[in-house]
Amino acid sequence: MIRIAVVGFGYWGPNLARNLLIPDRSELVAICDTDSKQTHVAGTLYPNVRISGSAEETIEATDVDAIALATPAQSHFELALAALKAGKHVLISKPMTETSEQAAKLIEEANRRGLVLLVDHTFVYSNAVRQVRASIRSGEIGDLYYYDSIRANLGRFRSDVSVLWDLALHDLSILDYVLDDARPLGVSVIGATHVAGSPENLAFITLFLPKGALAHINVNWLAPVKLRQTLIAGSGKMIVYDELHPSEKLRIYDRGVELAHSDDVERRIGYRLGDMTAPRLTTGEALANEAAHFLDCIETGAKPVTGGTEALRLIKLLESATVSMRQRGRLIELPAGTGC
Amino acid sequence: MIRIAVVGFGYWGPNLARNLLIPDRSELVAICDTDSKQTHVAGTLYPNVRISGSAEETIEATDVDAIALATPAQSHFELALAALKAGKHVLISKPMTETSEQAAKLIEEANRRGLVLLVDHTFVYSNAVRQVRASIRSGEIGDLYYYDSIRANLGRFRSDVSVLWDLALHDLSILDYVLDDARPLGVSVIGATHVAGSPENLAFITLFLPKGALAHINVNWLAPVKLRQTLIAGSGKMIVYDELHPSEKLRIYDRGVELAHSDDVERRIGYRLGDMTAPRLTTGEALANEAAHFLDCIETGAKPVTGGTEALRLIKLLESATVSMRQRGRLIELPAGTGC
Amino acid sequence: MIRIAVVGFGYWGPNLARNLLIPDRSELVAICDTDSKQTHVAGTLYPNVRISGSAEETIEATDVDAIALATPAQSHFELALAALKAGKHVLISKPMTETSEQAAKLIEEANRRGLVLLVDHTFVYSNAVRQVRASIRSGEIGDLYYYDSIRANLGRFRSDVSVLWDLALHDLSILDYVLDDARPLGVSVIGATHVAGSPENLAFITLFLPKGALAHINVNWLAPVKLRQTLIAGSGKMIVYDELHPSEKLRIYDRGVELAHSDDVERRIGYRLGDMTAPRLTTGEALANEAAHFLDCIETGAKPVTGGTEALRLIKLLESATVSMRQRGRLIELPAGTGC
Amino acid sequence: MIRIAVVGFGYWGPNLARNLLIPDRSELVAICDTDSKQTHVAGTLYPNVRISGSAEETIEATDVDAIALATPAQSHFELALAALKAGKHVLISKPMTETSEQAAKLIEEANRRGLVLLVDHTFVYSNAVRQVRASIRSGEIGDLYYYDSIRANLGRFRSDVSVLWDLALHDLSILDYVLDDARPLGVSVIGATHVAGSPENLAFITLFLPKGALAHINVNWLAPVKLRQTLIAGSGKMIVYDELHPSEKLRIYDRGVELAHSDDVERRIGYRLGDMTAPRLTTGEALANEAAHFLDCIETGAKPVTGGTEALRLIKLLESATVSMRQRGRLIELPAGTGC
Repeated sequence: MIRIAVVGFGYWGPNLARNLLIPDRSELVAICDTDSKQTHVAGTLYPNVRISGSAEETIEATDVDAIALATPAQSHFELALAALKAGKHVLISKPMTETSEQAAKLIEEANRRGLVLLVDHTFVYSNAVRQVRASIRSGEIGDLYYYDSIRANLGRFRSDVSVLWDLALHDLSILDYVLDDARPLGVSVIGATHVAGSPENLAFITLFLPKGALAHINVNWLAPVKLRQTLIAGSGKMIVYDELHPSEKLRIYDRGVELAHSDDVERRIGYRLGDMTAPRLTTGEALANEAAHFLDCIETGAKPVTGGTEALRLIKLLESATVSMRQRGRLIELPAGTGC
Repeated sequence: MIRIAVVGFGYWGPNLARNLLIPDRSELVAICDTDSKQTHVAGTLYPNVRISGSAEETIEATDVDAIALATPAQSHFELALAALKAGKHVLISKPMTETSEQAAKLIEEANRRGLVLLVDHTFVYSNAVRQVRASIRSGEIGDLYYYDSIRANLGRFRSDVSVLWDLALHDLSILDYVLDDARPLGVSVIGATHVAGSPENLAFITLFLPKGALAHINVNWLAPVKLRQTLIAGSGKMIVYDELHPSEKLRIYDRGVELAHSDDVERRIGYRLGDMTAPRLTTGEALANEAAHFLDCIETGAKPVTGGTEALRLIKLLESATVSMRQRGRLIELPAGTGC
Repeated sequence: MIRIAVVGFGYWGPNLARNLLIPDRSELVAICDTDSKQTHVAGTLYPNVRISGSAEETIEATDVDAIALATPAQSHFELALAALKAGKHVLISKPMTETSEQAAKLIEEANRRGLVLLVDHTFVYSNAVRQVRASIRSGEIGDLYYYDSIRANLGRFRSDVSVLWDLALHDLSILDYVLDDARPLGVSVIGATHVAGSPENLAFITLFLPKGALAHINVNWLAPVKLRQTLIAGSGKMIVYDELHPSEKLRIYDRGVELAHSDDVERRIGYRLGDMTAPRLTTGEALANEAAHFLDCIETGAKPVTGGTEALRLIKLLESATVSMRQRGRLIELPAGTGC
Repeated sequence: MIRIAVVGFGYWGPNLARNLLIPDRSELVAICDTDSKQTHVAGTLYPNVRISGSAEETIEATDVDAIALATPAQSHFELALAALKAGKHVLISKPMTETSEQAAKLIEEANRRGLVLLVDHTFVYSNAVRQVRASIRSGEIGDLYYYDSIRANLGRFRSDVSVLWDLALHDLSILDYVLDDARPLGVSVIGATHVAGSPENLAFITLFLPKGALAHINVNWLAPVKLRQTLIAGSGKMIVYDELHPSEKLRIYDRGVELAHSDDVERRIGYRLGDMTAPRLTTGEALANEAAHFLDCIETGAKPVTGGTEALRLIKLLESATVSMRQRGRLIELPAGTGC
């Protein structure tokens, strides 16, 4: 039985607590938050779990094997480092840290001590994204043309990070996972703040990918409706991934252009319009899959799919993206093959 | 009775012909196309209309008052100039011309001769767009935050112009119309070609508008599904305009952020979640509205809503946009107040 | 060249005219309507077609081979009979006649003279319905469980017939076509009139089919939204047919129940949840397919798919359905194998 | 603090447990199920709650004030009666009992002892249904024309009751609540069983309401997609209530027919096509509202909105509906004003 403590019980912590408590595999032994309203809620939900206002105490506790960290981004580095130094495995909510230097230090510390460091890039564990990766790797999609995503809603303006480090990071982690052999070569971001004193709430990110492919990510905290839609197209099939569709999150279209062998430039382009298939996805929530994977890694010593290395690559990319955004979209070139 | 000739009877010409023929107001006297397949179709549809393979002949004919031009963009300037010189009013499909110099010459010629020059920016005449303009001008939307549009489908790759001068021009003309006192200050475009030898089939356009507002336009000829969706948000209400919705093209949401007067930075942002209203739109197709407006202008001498001046401003903007696209999104500054 | 006259140019006649005019195969020689407003419209649309206010004259004209009849239902019998007696092929809009006696007489007259009599049950010619029939006949659907349709909108209250003889007839003709070996054994209808003095505008029709299958048809002229959705389920696959879906009219689900071989009554039922496929449908409008089929039958002497015999069977069924509706849903048994 | 025990922890019991546990108002003291798999789950979720395999023991326990009963329908009467006799308040999942005689006895027992008896007709407590009731009572809908609902999905075939006593009861309870002065005068039901040995899994229920209005309820356990859509129309406005819509569960259309004052029977009917409004609904889940109402009633002695009397009326109606269904839709007349 792996003994878990959840540090930070605001918006996301309760989700981690619920999913990390897996019958016969794990135990929830402590929850900590500095806000007494949140610890009151925790006490009602988990009457037999130790509730604390002190992160240090919780992290140091000898009856804890792993820490799930869901505090604001500013405190991630310090708390995660303390947890690793105390010999605990760590699951950190995204973004892992505020800087790539901090991220590198956490990786080093985890490696030195042989501890699991998993960053909560939840969508990587969703059955739809796993199927997207499988479709790309199988060759079904062909040469990638573009990945084009919109992720918008009204609500949950974060004050600790911009929409880039929040919503866009979901897409960047999905891309990093499904396109593992096509790291971005450049990034250009235009963003805006519509609430004085807040971080950017709207951003348009474009990534230049190898072989002329593009990734485009439209993220928005200030939209009238909730949207989670991604188009992925290649020379083979095309995918529409709609996270909000009640039954068909993934639709795969046998559509595309077909080049006629002709000298007639005007009429050269034909279209392939075939069937659409919505594959049956295995059931199970992404966060539950992730929690099980965290326990697996602790038990077997395996490297997490979304470990420190992957998270560091994404943070470096976000650092370049932020530079571009602060310079109104200036293209930042990224060293080939690094994607960051 | 205004006597009309349609020059160019390929994809768009038949639509112009059908809409410009208004009982008791106009007469269709000639149709011309250089492709004999198209003139055969024209002859079947309009057995008593003069069919011709010669644009010159059709333009010069003394029984024609106005020319509707629906040929490839390359020929617009020459044919429109000839028509104006022959004393005909002209309706040109978009884009008006290939360069701003050509556009300026057409405007000059039309002005000198007192002829109507109308460019077919169809959506400006749609009842939904008219309502968007009314909502913005009434103050209901408040300070504009953003205009964010996606316009995608599979099919009709044009070989004469890029997707920028085709699909994106729809949004640029809508913006020019609904935001007539907020011309863009800068433009950045990233585009891509996925069919060798064709113009760009995918582009992401960002316009920097006054007071920190942004416009973003995502256009794509190579998408698995057809999308025509625009979000327009301000400090007041927010609009979702979906051209493809069978009954509610326009939905107006009484939603937004509300700043609490508080020192607590973390909790400063509240949300306003009110009713949504889908206003009843007057019926009537955009192109029919446009055709009637063209006849009105001919009869009364009024300036068209989408005349040469408006079209020239958009072509200048497209020229800057194309420069930006060919330089991978370099921001092109636009002289304040000109929007181009 | 088959020479066509359209008699009745109100709501539906213009659609027949447009589709029956097939280049190189047919010619539109006359249009007739007793309403001068409608003949004015006809004259504008078809300036070189003979326009008349007299149905008799049009039907008798020696330069006419076939009559397309789109007048109110009350006049169908008399006009179609006159047309057949004048040696013309006839396409009649639905319902063919007001009574089964009239229908039988038209069939007899057409047979005696070797003329084509086709009833405009348009949906039978749609590519989606053809695919539904193919799926049922291939065995893919398995044993039929039910056909459940809703067909609703606001507008076009007919004064000549009830919603049963208008909207429901669409579904009855589809059923007749796709289930040609499973004729209904009984019918029960509940209907209502909400506009005083009008025929029933709302009806719920249930057909008892062989082997315990049911067909249910919900038709409504007084609905806030337009709906055209049909569920078809069997022991194999299940179909959702949505006539209004922009791109996926037909979706075929590999879903169903699976009976576990178990004594445990409580847990006996399992579910099969497989992929969904939206097959690519051949393009082409139903009415255009029907028009081409009408010309084919005239040229080859073949029996139409929706000829007099099929229409008579449906009218008999509507007669029983109307009896049931006037008796608040009393079940009317139908002679086995006749479906009417 | 009201002390709650949940009896029956299968499909629905966990939902009752979660919602009935309201911080500072109630306490969950016991959970009981005869299936050891379910008690194991309960023990993991609620480690400090008493878990039992004996309903009798749980019901008799002196530290329990109220019982939430979520066992199969067959056991409702006996267990609820025992709970009332033991002086406990009772919340019963639907259907309350298998027969109206049993229902009457529970009501009598609860009344004699002054205990709260609430039946879990969940949708009555949803904010959308509350708004529907408000719209009807305000006169906004005008004279009711019809209530037309479809409630379909694949899964959860119940073996204890037919789809009539399961899915249809949702609609019947909604109708009973929103139309409290228009009780049904007759009922006709056609149903079918497609899984041998199971209760009916498909049914079409029609209720004859006062003044010519109809209610129609289409329920189906064997559908390829999940549907929860209700149309409600009157002489004033019309409502579309879609339980599954992510943001606009309720849309109110200012649409209808308008009778022109004219002798021209043909053209008598005009249409009113106005705005649509999706009112903002108060947040909060139906079951949470219901749970709070249950505690309110216990504390104040108020009569529940869905008490024994309401549930008895619905069971009597279901008994008539079942008689009709077993006789292939024979119309069963209901005593005026009783609705059952």
